[in-house]
Amino acid sequence: MNKKLQQSFVVPFDYPVYFTDHIFNPKNSTLATLLKSKNHPKVLYVADEGVVSHHTTLLSSIENFNQFYKNNFQACNKIIVIPGGETAKNNPKYVERILDAVNKYGVDRHSFIVGIGGGAVLDAVGFAAAIAHRGIRHIRIPTTVLSQNDSGIGVKNGINSYHKKNFLGTFAPPFAVVNDFQFLTTLETRDWRAGISEAIKVALIKDATFFQFIYEHADKLNKRDKAAMQQLIFRCAEMHMEHIAGGDPFEMGSSRPLDFGHWSAHKLEQLTNYSIRHGEAVAIGMALDVTYSFLKGMITEAELNTIIELLLKLEFPLFVPEMEATTTKGKAFSLIAGLEEFREHLGGELTIMLLETIGKGVEVHELDTDLIQKSIVILKAFHHEGLSV
Amino acid sequence: MNKKLQQSFVVPFDYPVYFTDHIFNPKNSTLATLLKSKNHPKVLYVADEGVVSHHTTLLSSIENFNQFYKNNFQACNKIIVIPGGETAKNNPKYVERILDAVNKYGVDRHSFIVGIGGGAVLDAVGFAAAIAHRGIRHIRIPTTVLSQNDSGIGVKNGINSYHKKNFLGTFAPPFAVVNDFQFLTTLETRDWRAGISEAIKVALIKDATFFQFIYEHADKLNKRDKAAMQQLIFRCAEMHMEHIAGGDPFEMGSSRPLDFGHWSAHKLEQLTNYSIRHGEAVAIGMALDVTYSFLKGMITEAELNTIIELLLKLEFPLFVPEMEATTTKGKAFSLIAGLEEFREHLGGELTIMLLETIGKGVEVHELDTDLIQKSIVILKAFHHEGLSV
Repeated sequence: MNKKLQQSFVVPFDYPVYFTDHIFNPKNSTLATLLKSKNHPKVLYVADEGVVSHHTTLLSSIENFNQFYKNNFQACNKIIVIPGGETAKNNPKYVERILDAVNKYGVDRHSFIVGIGGGAVLDAVGFAAAIAHRGIRHIRIPTTVLSQNDSGIGVKNGINSYHKKNFLGTFAPPFAVVNDFQFLTTLETRDWRAGISEAIKVALIKDATFFQFIYEHADKLNKRDKAAMQQLIFRCAEMHMEHIAGGDPFEMGSSRPLDFGHWSAHKLEQLTNYSIRHGEAVAIGMALDVTYSFLKGMITEAELNTIIELLLKLEFPLFVPEMEATTTKGKAFSLIAGLEEFREHLGGELTIMLLETIGKGVEVHELDTDLIQKSIVILKAFHHEGLSV
Repeated sequence: MNKKLQQSFVVPFDYPVYFTDHIFNPKNSTLATLLKSKNHPKVLYVADEGVVSHHTTLLSSIENFNQFYKNNFQACNKIIVIPGGETAKNNPKYVERILDAVNKYGVDRHSFIVGIGGGAVLDAVGFAAAIAHRGIRHIRIPTTVLSQNDSGIGVKNGINSYHKKNFLGTFAPPFAVVNDFQFLTTLETRDWRAGISEAIKVALIKDATFFQFIYEHADKLNKRDKAAMQQLIFRCAEMHMEHIAGGDPFEMGSSRPLDFGHWSAHKLEQLTNYSIRHGEAVAIGMALDVTYSFLKGMITEAELNTIIELLLKLEFPLFVPEMEATTTKGKAFSLIAGLEEFREHLGGELTIMLLETIGKGVEVHELDTDLIQKSIVILKAFHHEGLSV
């Protein structure tokens, strides 16, 4: 017998991303409306410890909100609080803690898990929600610039394993995302800024006008101007979502995520034991690939200087000593090992995005390690001495 | 600020299901063609211990096959062998063993994991493949009737946790499925038969002609006739695939999987410590819901008798003592607890399929526990005394 059946179907995914303020104030019905359904669903909250410590009334606000909207949904008794940052992704016990609660409270596929936190916490919560009962409805409330404009609004989740970032994870679109600006007001300046790097990333490879906006508003962004940051987050989120929808959302073929500057960023986070923020690592990674693009004759010196000037103005690091760490092979091979790990994580042929000009990226399939080395030397000088070098 | 972005996209999924023989004979190029791609992908095999012990030349055949087609792909050094049956799903260490190999061999998203085994092994392998690097290409080679006509060709994977079946899992369509009839030749008679129950299930709720086919070929199926079994598997697979593609493949809304007879089947597997096969549990579960449908006045006594006659002819059990196990609440509440677990796993409102007539199912949203009790009494008699009661 030699026969064949061909399976073929499409799965539609839809989710809204709201931009609002004071999401747990009962007067704001955005979240309560999302959670309302005829089966009176259960709602399990998981919050980022860092957010809870900066917003001391958060937990009581949530309880008050649950009480106010008790006809819409039924909140699980206990709000789970897990550490923020990569700790949430490095230790599998936090995912297990969420799964324990799913089991204990009988949270089903038509119930909700609401994650409140930075990108790392949302990644871990999203992974737990994706694998419990083959996927529980998941609402993300990102609390950092980075997660509001990038990771929190996308379709990925994951935790780290085998010392590899996002070794475990799935593609699982959220049920909804709610961006509440108020969470950004208590961010450390370092985190406020770190999130800007993903906006610079998307601007550099896709939208010169948006880059110009960021360049012109750098001072306002430094001064934590609300309107400027809201515009930045909205436009970055919009472009990120368009990229996902327009391409290959689950990255099954050869289309790429928006990962300019990310091959080295992922490796630098690991080499520095996650002492630098993801956004900071991305800033360094972009600076590296921008400098490389210049050395390759792809962008002009003026463009290089404009980009570096913006990164320096926003006080991003352009260099960390780990970039010079060598292995027995010499040179910056610890960092360069990130190239193969990056290829391995995405699969298939190595594909790296470089810059053709501000606003336009171009893909290449190999990098010259000597030029990477030279780029690092130049960045070290920029980092220590500014643009005057 | 109150703004909203709406994300909306569709993800297309396609995969072939082949029906062939001697898949690891180099003359059969089905698998080798699937594995060939320009990046010379890595291939990690995971095989079911039970299959390996019945097919003593399997591992060497695979190695020979790898050698013959080494220009198509690069096999990882070691074939992973894990226990068959629910053991593969009850102990998380088998999924971990696969993940260890993914890490060790650098298996990436454009590489392949090939699972060879019964439904439980394929569920565990599929889960590992789905969560490593957010999804590695996964090819299934089902080796039982049940997995060739039902679980192996669908889009689900999973392992058991918290004593709940498939508590952890995802929806992740395979890259391809290859059904090799040769694996069925060494099945124990019990397993040969167990797989027929899913075909009876789909026939009962969807296709009276197919039910008639099974009824008329019961003797041939008992005598392990190849042609009859091939036809049964092909038609069952076809209907199963049509149901997935035509409905809601990832079960995000309220549409249902083909789970007639399954609410009690899942619970019976657990109550008997998985000493009965899934297919046997489904046979009992169907018998229970068929009897219930008769007691509810939905099907005629003649229909009930025809169905029970077929199940008895194929030597399916219709009763196990665990169906009478009681809790402090009395009656068969251990079994009846399965109703709520079934609802919880699928989420939302309880939905149970009953029979309107042979070939047509109908959904209801509650069951009468007294009638379940009466159905069990009737089944116990059928089981011990046949249709003469």
